[in-house]
This record gives sequence, C-alpha cells and structure tokens, in this order.
Amino acid sequence: MIKRNLTLLTDLYELTMMNGYYLKGKKDEVAVFDVFFRQNELITFSLAAGLEQAVDYVLNLSFGKDETEYLRSLGIFDEGFLEYLSGMKFTGDIYSVPEGTMVFPGEPIFTVKAPVMQAQLIETAVLNIINHQTLIASKAAKICNAAKGDAVMEFGLRRAQGPDAGIYGARAAIIGGCASTSNVLAGQEFGVKVSGTHAHSWVMDFPSEYEAFKAYADVYPDGVLLLVDTYDTLKSGIPNAIKVFDEVRAKGKEPVGIRIDSGDLAYLTKQARKMLDAAGYPKAVICASGDLDERLVQSLKQQGAKIDTWGIGTKLITSADMPALGGVYKLSGVEKNGKIIPKIKVSDNSAKITNPGFKTIYRIYDRETGKAEADLIALRGEKIDFTSPLTLYHPIERWKKITFTNYEARELPQKIVENGKLVYDMPKLTEIAAYAQREMGSFWDEYLRIDQPHVYKVDLSDGLYALKTEMLDKIRKGENL
Amino acid sequence: MIKRNLTLLTDLYELTMMNGYYLKGKKDEVAVFDVFFRQNELITFSLAAGLEQAVDYVLNLSFGKDETEYLRSLGIFDEGFLEYLSGMKFTGDIYSVPEGTMVFPGEPIFTVKAPVMQAQLIETAVLNIINHQTLIASKAAKICNAAKGDAVMEFGLRRAQGPDAGIYGARAAIIGGCASTSNVLAGQEFGVKVSGTHAHSWVMDFPSEYEAFKAYADVYPDGVLLLVDTYDTLKSGIPNAIKVFDEVRAKGKEPVGIRIDSGDLAYLTKQARKMLDAAGYPKAVICASGDLDERLVQSLKQQGAKIDTWGIGTKLITSADMPALGGVYKLSGVEKNGKIIPKIKVSDNSAKITNPGFKTIYRIYDRETGKAEADLIALRGEKIDFTSPLTLYHPIERWKKITFTNYEARELPQKIVENGKLVYDMPKLTEIAAYAQREMGSFWDEYLRIDQPHVYKVDLSDGLYALKTEMLDKIRKGENL
Repeated sequence: MIKRNLTLLTDLYELTMMNGYYLKGKKDEVAVFDVFFRQNELITFSLAAGLEQAVDYVLNLSFGKDETEYLRSLGIFDEGFLEYLSGMKFTGDIYSVPEGTMVFPGEPIFTVKAPVMQAQLIETAVLNIINHQTLIASKAAKICNAAKGDAVMEFGLRRAQGPDAGIYGARAAIIGGCASTSNVLAGQEFGVKVSGTHAHSWVMDFPSEYEAFKAYADVYPDGVLLLVDTYDTLKSGIPNAIKVFDEVRAKGKEPVGIRIDSGDLAYLTKQARKMLDAAGYPKAVICASGDLDERLVQSLKQQGAKIDTWGIGTKLITSADMPALGGVYKLSGVEKNGKIIPKIKVSDNSAKITNPGFKTIYRIYDRETGKAEADLIALRGEKIDFTSPLTLYHPIERWKKITFTNYEARELPQKIVENGKLVYDMPKLTEIAAYAQREMGSFWDEYLRIDQPHVYKVDLSDGLYALKTEMLDKIRKGENL
Repeated sequence: MIKRNLTLLTDLYELTMMNGYYLKGKKDEVAVFDVFFRQNELITFSLAAGLEQAVDYVLNLSFGKDETEYLRSLGIFDEGFLEYLSGMKFTGDIYSVPEGTMVFPGEPIFTVKAPVMQAQLIETAVLNIINHQTLIASKAAKICNAAKGDAVMEFGLRRAQGPDAGIYGARAAIIGGCASTSNVLAGQEFGVKVSGTHAHSWVMDFPSEYEAFKAYADVYPDGVLLLVDTYDTLKSGIPNAIKVFDEVRAKGKEPVGIRIDSGDLAYLTKQARKMLDAAGYPKAVICASGDLDERLVQSLKQQGAKIDTWGIGTKLITSADMPALGGVYKLSGVEKNGKIIPKIKVSDNSAKITNPGFKTIYRIYDRETGKAEADLIALRGEKIDFTSPLTLYHPIERWKKITFTNYEARELPQKIVENGKLVYDMPKLTEIAAYAQREMGSFWDEYLRIDQPHVYKVDLSDGLYALKTEMLDKIRKGENL
C-alpha cells in the first residue's frame, strides 16, 4: 500500500459523536456495527473486496500532532478528548467475509465489535474502501463473464476518479477476473501483470504509420502488437501491420497481433481476421477496446466479432452504470454487562429496517451438485442444527419457504482482527482472484447472468427473525428498546 | 497534498513508448500535447479543476530505486533507458486555464510542450487528475446552481471511489460552490470548512431518541442540529427535537435546527417547518439529505419544500449520471528545427478529428453586458486583430457565422510551468471557488440551465481552420504529413 496517514479520512460527525461519547461517559462502551448494502435493480451479484485496505486503515489509525492540532483548531472538541485521541489505537474485533466471496444485499459482510468511539471513527473509511472495491470487482466479474474466458485487460486509469480509484480499482478488477492492468503503480503494488503497447501518438510522431510500426517492431521484436486505427483501420492500419509482420517473421520472430480502438468493432474485427488469415497470420490476436462494458462485450460475441482479448477502461473503472454500491454501516448492538443488547433502525419501508444483533452468515450448498442454494443470516451463538433438514423463509414474505435435506452449511465471515490484532493471513491478490473464480463457479449460471438474473435467497434464521419481530412489536407499542 | 511517490501512476504503454523513443534517438524531440474533452449529450458546461495536483505530479516525478527495479523486473526495458529515467525531471512547459475557468468541449484546457518522453509519461496521471476534478467541480456547480444560494454541504466520502476520490472530490466540490465538506482530511489539507453533527447510530445508542438529543445538546449547546428521522420524523423526531430545543433555549442558547435524511422530503420539510414555526422556532434551519442531485434539488424547490441547507453525497461525489468526463490527451505537434510541425488525428467522425498545432483559447466578451459570447481556438503566434470586428465560424458547419463589433478578447490559458519550473502562483482553494463563481456569473443563465442549455460557441480561428483543412486534404491525397 502507498503509505499515508489517512486517520482523518472520516466524516466530521464521526468525531463530534466520539467527543460526545467521551464526554457522556461512554468511552468504553462496546458496540457492534455491520457493513451491508441494500438491494437495488442494478445489483445482481457482488464480489466482496477491499478488506485488506480497510483493515490496514483500521490498524494504522494514528492521531499525530498535526491531526490533533487541526482538530483543536475547529474549536468544538474537548481537550481531554483530544488527548485521548493521541494515544488511541483500535482495540476491537473485526469479522468479515474473505475478499472474493460472493455476497448479496442485506448480508453483514464486515462486522466491527469495538468501543463505540473507535467503531464510529472508522465507519467512513471502511465504507469508502469496501464500497469502492466491491463495486469494481463485481463490475469486472460481469465483464469477464461476458468475455467467456478471453483475457480482459483493465485500461481505465486515465478515467478513474483520482489516483486511488485507479490503483485500487485495478486491484479490484483483478479480483473480478481481469488478466492484467495498464496501471504500472498497481502492478508494482500488487504484483499483478501489467500490459500495454503503444498509443496513437506513437504512430503520429513518425512520418508515416508504416515507419511507426517498423520502429515499434524494432524495439519490441517479441511483442509486436500494433494499434491500427490511427488513420484508416482497413485501408492503412492493417496493411501496414501485415507489412511489418512479414518483416518480423523474416527475422525469425512471430508477431503478436493488432489492437483496434474505434469504429464498428464487429465489422472491423471480422474484416481484420480475414485480412490477417489471408496474409498467413491466423494466430495473430485481435485486441479490441473503446468504451466497452459487459453488454457490449456480450453483443459483440453474439455478432460473431473476431476479438481475442479485450481492453476495458472507463466503464469498468467507474462502474459507469452504477458508480456507487451504496453500502451502509449500521449499529446492530451495544454491549451491556458483557451481553450484546440488539439495536434496530426502523423505516416505513420494510426493506430498509435493519437486522438487529451480532450476526453471521451461513451459505447452504447442495451436497449433490456442490452449488450454493441459499444464504442464512443468523445470530452469533444461535444454535442451528445443520444435521437435520433445514427450512428457510423469505425474510419479509414469510409464506415463501424452502426445505433442504441433503446440504451442507459454510459460515462465510471469518475473524480478521481480535482485540486490535490481525489474526488472519491476508491472501495474495492472485489467490483472492482464484478464490473469486471458485466462488462464482459454485453458483448456477442463472444467478450470474446480466439481465434479470435469478434472485438468490438470503433468509433470516429463526432466532434472528424472532428477535426482529419482537423488537418491531415493542417499537409499535412505543416502548423503549 | 498527502505525499506519495506517484511517478508510476501511468499506463504501461507510456513507458514502452518512452523506451522506444529513447532507442529510436528521439530522446530530445519536443512534442506538444493537448488535454481536451469531447462533446456528449450529458456535458453542458464544465469548470476546469485539478491543475494544482496535476502540476504537483509533474514537478515531483522521481524514479527512485524501487521504481527502476520494478521496471527492470518486467524485462522489456533497455538498461540505458532505465538509467536515463533515474535522473529524469520534467523540463518542459505547461499552459493551462486556471482552475475554476468555464470550459467547453474541444478546448485545449491543458497543453504540454516538452521532450516527447516526458510528455508521454505524464499523460495518464494528468488525465486522471484533471478528468476527475473537472467532472466533480462541474457536477457540484450544477447542484449548487439548483440550490439557488442555499448552502450545499458535500457529504459523499463514504460513497466515493476510494480515498482520493473523497479527498480531491471534496476539493473539486468546493470549487464548484459547495459551502463545506464532511471530509475532515480534505478540511485539513485544503483549509475549507468542515461540517457534520451526528448519525442515526448516536440516536440508537441511547435508550431513547429524547435522551440522545438531550445528550447531544449538552455536548454542543451552540450547535444543536438534530437528525430527526431515526424512528418516525413527524411523530417522534421533531417533537423530541422541539422538547430539547425548549431546554436549550431555557439555558439561554438558540438551537440551530434539524436534519431529515429519508422519506418524502417535500412533504416532511413542509410539515417540519409548520411544527418548528408553531413551537417558536421560525429560524431553526431544516437540512435535507438523502440521494439528492441537481434535478431533485430543483424539483424540491419547485414543490415548495422548506429546505434551508442541503447535504449531498453519492450523486455529487461520483457524478452519478456521468461518472467520467472522457478527457483525452492528444499529440498536436512535434518540434523540428525550432518549429512546431502540426500533427492531426483523423477519424470518420468529423467531430473526432483533432485540432492540429500549438494552440491557445480566446474568450470573446460583449463590452456592453460583460457577458461571454463565444470562444475562439487559435494557433499560438497567429495574428488576430481584436481591434476590428471579428467574425467567427462554426468549426464544422462553416455556413454558421457571427460577427462581433463591440467586444473584448481574453486569452484563457496561462503559462504555468516553464522549462520545468513553476512560474504561476497557485491560488488558494477559496480564491479558486470565488473565481469559479465570477466565471459562471459571466455567462447567461441559458448556458447554465440543466436541460437543453443554449450551446456555447467554440470556433476555430482562420489560421487554425486553414491549417486543419490543408492537412486533411493532404491525408485524403495520401501524402505523408
């Protein structure tokens, strides 16, 4: 990670609340908060991502002199509180699904149990990081799925929303299945493959396209991949490329292929394929780029475009059709005398009522197919007999139910941080990417398709459902919780 | 700025091209590149932003041992080139419009004249930074214009695409007219106002909403602004807030107001206003937040919602309806014997053909109204007589023309960097924000409206038009340029 002190990467209200908790004698009160995201029509499946950076933020919190002096200058904080901050470290617990896990709306994918001041402080950065990387990993997965095994290169740095969006967006894209990134800093930071050859400017800098191609082939005889659309793809670019390919082959090397970055990619790549084949280059790859996303990739595939590898930029790195995941961080409990008192946030909209209590998630797999069938959000410590048939109920429409007999259950969240210490081995990025592929492979294709995917079941355990119902009843009766 | 070595924040192809230029004896060849963005139906007006960070990147380029060792490990770079990199500094010139300037599609808002290797290297980061900040500053301006002078607070950090998107997005939001940000780190970095009070979690942490409000008022007697929608805005939140307001006033303080973050904001704020007025708090402000953008702000205003201040998050910080500006960086000339040889990128789509040569921009103001009437892209060094009547032609549809008689012309780009040295005083963020307001004030409202704004004229000078036409003729005839 590119080291900075990001401690103050938080909303002011986190600090005003902390100061309030400090002054109201709640300094040591322990609270539980969950990160989850809500259903919306654009969310199909998601791959969790960003855990490593979120934990890095939490474990490196440090209010130095610059930070406390700045806060003092705001004139709203208690001196005792500012002193307390300067020695503060995170001392709580974090549970999270591993990066690359398939996750769904409503699931507590990241849970913090910590003194309320600390838990409140980290809300903003944790959401920022997990929202961003989960969003981009999921978008990348959709694009890579549409490419059906073709290599997809992440090219979006210049259109990312600032440096970090490029750097951590590239990381997330690799988790989602991209084969490489154009982003050199991300390549260095995360040890992933970087790719790239030349731009239109290289071609324009030379007196002619042919000379530019020839110069490129001289410098990179083993990596002759030429961008052919600077002037005229079919009349100039490909003929010049073939001329240089012939020269490369005459020197005993095999050219790699061409890239087309504009125009009608279906038409141009079919023509390009014919021209390359006719010239004796059936193995030369055709790389396509230019404002692509999963729908265009799918459409080009259906049209029979002859594209071997894909360069995807803007629409991947910004998740252009849904540029924010909308993850939230909600209080679900407060510890009193060693027991978690559950907390609930109500709303007129029943889908917006939070799930109270200290929770976990189980994924139910069919033993025969090995496929995931449903998830179950349950209370931690709740006894669930996974050796007997299991009946799950829709969390709101309770008349919808399903019973599993030949199944096994896997708990998704793991303990990541305990009493402020990392107790989890952060996997390498390549391992996370491989795990994400296995995760997607454990779901039926119907859950992964772009349009109107089958809705994956995420239900509440009996214990959690009973608790939620009881709390809502109390609120309806006007009782304090 | 939060210091990091971002030198490798570049696409691999910049480095492969640099290595190529190095090996092909083009190490000292000087080239000119322009940053501009293309028209699309979602771009109305834009406020340039990001110059300070882009220049900071360029002037702090530094290939240390870590960087060159990583590049060596890729196995594609010449040893001489890697050695050359380790001593490399930017030695060129940069021209740019000041941050906060109103800019339009096709205009060269940032121009680099430098050895081609350096100019190529910086492409990616310069685009990344300018694309991002210009996008967010422009979105903020649209939202603030819709709010018609009400204070708009930028609240989006948790939904931003990574830390930098939050930090520099907040900076850009201030340029666009936001009064404050919730982002404490941005407040510290840029010396701008931070704002924020408390979240739903504060209310949920206490045994009752009333107790939570009372505790908040105890801690911040001078800043009692209460979030009233945790349980039931009208039946619980506002009555509890009024009860606490009465207690605050009994202690000789005046409460600030309430915030509503969910529900039908038109209905709820009208009811809230009545309740607050009836209780004796006609000056208590009502702050609204919750997935707002310029269209919703405009709609709420039209519906007579009683909102005094606005908290805008996700849709501002991601520019949700257009999350990338699409700015490009195109070669426009190469120096030969001290003279700039113009370069052009052609395309079947005439709007995508670049403007060749080393250029500048003039803005034409009507002397009587003081309003901007048109921009003129011209060649640097081209003699234009601004003391005589001036006729401008549409850049493609040449039969469309307009003649100005009583006008003055202002050159927009300034020299920022000369021979690698900063020669421009970077204004403070508050100064940039004030300049942006003056800039928008110099345009008729018709250019600033949300829907189908009047299209501002951006024309080509006679010299530039003649050059472009001549070069396209040569290309049609198959001649080298």
